[in-house]
Amino acid sequence: MQTPSSPHGTAAAAGAVSAGASGQGHAGTKAKYTIGVDFGTLSGRAVVVRASDGAELGSGVYEYPHAVITDRLPDSSERLPADWALQVPDDYRGVLRQAVPAAVKDAGIDPQDVIGIGTDFTACTMVPTTSDGAPLNELEQFANRPHAYVKLWRHHAAQPQADRINQLAAERGEFWLPRYGGLISSEWEFAKGLQLLEEDPETYAAMDHWVEAADWIVWQLTGEYVRNACTAGYKGIYQDGQYPGEEFLSALNPEFKDFVTAKVEHRIGQLGAAAGRLNAEAAAWTGLAEGIAVAVGNVDAHVTAPAARAVETGQMVAIMGTSTCHVMNGEELAEVPGMCGVVDGGILAGRWGYEAGQSGVGDIFGWFVNNCVPPAYYEAAASRGLGIHEYLTELAAGQRIGEHGLIALDWHSGNRSVLVDHELSGVVVGQTLATRPEDIYRALLEATAFGTRTIVEAFNSSSVPVRELVVAGGLLKNPLLMQIYADVTGLRLSTVGSEQGPALGSAIHAAVAAGAYDDVHAAAESMGSDPADVYDPIPENQAAYDELYGEYTALHDYFGRGTNDVMHRLKAIQRSAIDAGLTEGSEA
Amino acid sequence: MQTPSSPHGTAAAAGAVSAGASGQGHAGTKAKYTIGVDFGTLSGRAVVVRASDGAELGSGVYEYPHAVITDRLPDSSERLPADWALQVPDDYRGVLRQAVPAAVKDAGIDPQDVIGIGTDFTACTMVPTTSDGAPLNELEQFANRPHAYVKLWRHHAAQPQADRINQLAAERGEFWLPRYGGLISSEWEFAKGLQLLEEDPETYAAMDHWVEAADWIVWQLTGEYVRNACTAGYKGIYQDGQYPGEEFLSALNPEFKDFVTAKVEHRIGQLGAAAGRLNAEAAAWTGLAEGIAVAVGNVDAHVTAPAARAVETGQMVAIMGTSTCHVMNGEELAEVPGMCGVVDGGILAGRWGYEAGQSGVGDIFGWFVNNCVPPAYYEAAASRGLGIHEYLTELAAGQRIGEHGLIALDWHSGNRSVLVDHELSGVVVGQTLATRPEDIYRALLEATAFGTRTIVEAFNSSSVPVRELVVAGGLLKNPLLMQIYADVTGLRLSTVGSEQGPALGSAIHAAVAAGAYDDVHAAAESMGSDPADVYDPIPENQAAYDELYGEYTALHDYFGRGTNDVMHRLKAIQRSAIDAGLTEGSEA
Repeated sequence: MQTPSSPHGTAAAAGAVSAGASGQGHAGTKAKYTIGVDFGTLSGRAVVVRASDGAELGSGVYEYPHAVITDRLPDSSERLPADWALQVPDDYRGVLRQAVPAAVKDAGIDPQDVIGIGTDFTACTMVPTTSDGAPLNELEQFANRPHAYVKLWRHHAAQPQADRINQLAAERGEFWLPRYGGLISSEWEFAKGLQLLEEDPETYAAMDHWVEAADWIVWQLTGEYVRNACTAGYKGIYQDGQYPGEEFLSALNPEFKDFVTAKVEHRIGQLGAAAGRLNAEAAAWTGLAEGIAVAVGNVDAHVTAPAARAVETGQMVAIMGTSTCHVMNGEELAEVPGMCGVVDGGILAGRWGYEAGQSGVGDIFGWFVNNCVPPAYYEAAASRGLGIHEYLTELAAGQRIGEHGLIALDWHSGNRSVLVDHELSGVVVGQTLATRPEDIYRALLEATAFGTRTIVEAFNSSSVPVRELVVAGGLLKNPLLMQIYADVTGLRLSTVGSEQGPALGSAIHAAVAAGAYDDVHAAAESMGSDPADVYDPIPENQAAYDELYGEYTALHDYFGRGTNDVMHRLKAIQRSAIDAGLTEGSEA
Repeated sequence: MQTPSSPHGTAAAAGAVSAGASGQGHAGTKAKYTIGVDFGTLSGRAVVVRASDGAELGSGVYEYPHAVITDRLPDSSERLPADWALQVPDDYRGVLRQAVPAAVKDAGIDPQDVIGIGTDFTACTMVPTTSDGAPLNELEQFANRPHAYVKLWRHHAAQPQADRINQLAAERGEFWLPRYGGLISSEWEFAKGLQLLEEDPETYAAMDHWVEAADWIVWQLTGEYVRNACTAGYKGIYQDGQYPGEEFLSALNPEFKDFVTAKVEHRIGQLGAAAGRLNAEAAAWTGLAEGIAVAVGNVDAHVTAPAARAVETGQMVAIMGTSTCHVMNGEELAEVPGMCGVVDGGILAGRWGYEAGQSGVGDIFGWFVNNCVPPAYYEAAASRGLGIHEYLTELAAGQRIGEHGLIALDWHSGNRSVLVDHELSGVVVGQTLATRPEDIYRALLEATAFGTRTIVEAFNSSSVPVRELVVAGGLLKNPLLMQIYADVTGLRLSTVGSEQGPALGSAIHAAVAAGAYDDVHAAAESMGSDPADVYDPIPENQAAYDELYGEYTALHDYFGRGTNDVMHRLKAIQRSAIDAGLTEGSEA
């Protein structure tokens, strides 16, 4: 079912950018480059791209030394509560210091030929800063305060605050609520900000700005704070030129009344515009020329749509990594239940950008291999020179649909769309004494595909039909998974040719910011990636999966729509048990 | 919570048996011994016991070379369908040849001083034989016929037949149906026999007797076929002196009309009676004296009640191994929904013996460690010199109740009581990216405890109140599991002192069969085991488990009582997929 196409970027450059168009005064015959930097959950990746045709010439990766902090702060023995997920901002600077020079070296280019740099980030990932952008955790007096650290997108401890925001917004009929599928996520700026205020008012008071990491990194590069239109809309409830009002905020908590004016509000930059110029410090970190264009911040998922040249209505781009984000442009404003948001210019200026998501995908597969696969499988994989994912995938691929007898719910990291409930959790039904690791592995792969179908169906039934899937992200390397997604959704699926979809997208935005193209649409035409592989649904498989999808939906609704709220109760019991343990521990 | 008592059998003999009472003519001052042999799922264990006081003097074990056959017959490449579980009868003879002499040697006694041998077996485990007791699989023309082999208790492929038996019995109002909790199991004689007839009529026609393995092994020892009252009642639907009638049988299938008269019916022996005398061939195998008493066959669970000296009303004996069997005596006949059966004299002559069960317990824990525990845990356990179960138990024991955030259903091997449905399967709800192997392990331990509580509550609400739990079997070695069972059920729990509860019970029956005691009750008084440990419920834990038990019950009823029949549908889909694969394979 796969139709490999020629790898992108090896052909001769087409539509080369003229020096005049770039406006940077470089010599017309000399190749110019941009750099895209993709800040993921565990590492940052920089890619050097030729502005004329999008050829990817070199890359560098930097793993965050602190990764994701869920147990204890650095140098602390105090345990964090359940559902926390923090990061250390200086780890992000490490990407600029290490991965960017490594990419330039790998590409073998002259760094002086780089005309712009663009970035994309996980979102909603929030940094509390002073007025000059210093993260609060870098101030000695706050180094031991959990709330002074970055709250990573998957920090899920602000659910009580999100619940109150949703209840109040529904009661008051706030116009912006349906733009977010009817629910504001605990992952976003307002819920996390309210948690910060209520749990650590001192840190909240010391905070001058509540900054998206996507914008914080641009601030590091330019010395200027610009909020990007994408996260301002999707995560910051910025709609039709305004944020939620003071009456709403003070009804949540009187101390929260000036949250927008005091902590959030700032100049908005449109996607593809320049936020500023590379400053001296960042030039020294990266080895690039001071003064080159730095694009407005962006989000990993959204920046991938132009990288995949998938910016038309009905083309749903799924960025499949630890989690999956789905983005799609539309001509009209529509309200899709359970979507993450619809934002004017959220993906491409002039179009309505729709977003939905699954909060755990690759993360679930990773959790499974780390926690649920026995030694014999690791030994067998190693003896064949395979990674454990490859080995399990090979075993799973040998099965017929339904042969494992299992059905799973993919909520190990909660549910972002369409239920928007991070108190939900994973389920596996159907295990027997004959169930093997590859059976559960395949059931988990399928569960995430059912999750995507649930999202696709929500769009279809809201007059925003999905016509095809374009997949980017690390998981596109698994052909079994791709075929399952095509079979489960019944949609043609193509994978992005670029190995570094988001980084390429950031490089495209950098090219526009540097003036090499008039707009992102034009830059995407020249620099965007051809599909690597195409997967068409197999009718026989589609029919088999229709049956299993029915089972998934029944369990989805039973556990997710309130028939049995056991998952919420288990989380509450778990929190009480952990709290009791902490109390006992501190008494001891 | 544990109160270790002095180990049983090391104190001076009390209530020693006189030579006159034994009636065997041995010298009064010389110690006499019996041997109990316990035939389990994977091995057989023989124990030499002193008849005067039950002291266990030596033991021997023999692992069945063919273990449980679920994939392919010996020397065959043909795959068995799903849910089959077969054994090879000669493996059982191996126990007589190997384990019995080993036990005698271990005890250091003169084999001529052994006055009787008793056996117990898994049930319902069925052997198709010729008229002289030869298993059909030992005839060359049947060696490749799956239906010629022993159908182990956990062979679950006769569910369609069991469904028809149940439906017809309910329609006809058969008086015996309520004696089995309203449902005849697919594990039992009639369902397995009907499957044999319908799937392999030639083998069925060649079969002269459809023999419980419990009785087949006695036949091997004595040369005489005697059906024991226990399995005839619990597994053979023998109630009030009769089996189901020909009208009922022919309504199931006209060819099944004479099933009872042609294949099943035979002389019944009461528990504790002698079935016959050790014949020459078996004397040669075992090294024991020809002509000593051989007790009527028995079942591992039922024989344990006297071994635990727990034969009074309200004392529920739980034999916890790969599966759990619950047995309890009662003065009156009552109908308990979902029990396995109530049989007059089924445990002790003159009392109503009640039985219930859980078809997967230790099997589930074993499946989990073999399939779901990663290498790091094995390495950590090994570096500490612990077994993997010990290591996981230690980690799980450090948790507070509910801290893992999980709830599981213990149906990986189906549900024997109170749902009597082997098409049910396992469930785990509540997994997150932070869930660790010890969390799931503990949730599975707890799930089996909730399963026991479900059974206890069914008895309590049917006027057969359970007052205490007496635990035998391999799992009693896990103190965390024992405390969880006490906390979950709210009952005082004691563990049997004997390391070999069933084998001791068989030795007690052997002593009665040999005439050393008047009846099993008297023999149990002298030879039965004192408790090793006592666990009282901890009120705080009980309250915490009450809450989780509520969640278990909700899921139990949702998945088990027809609200969502997803488990049945998944099994049907699985069978179709496997069948399609087999067809494709045979076409290739």
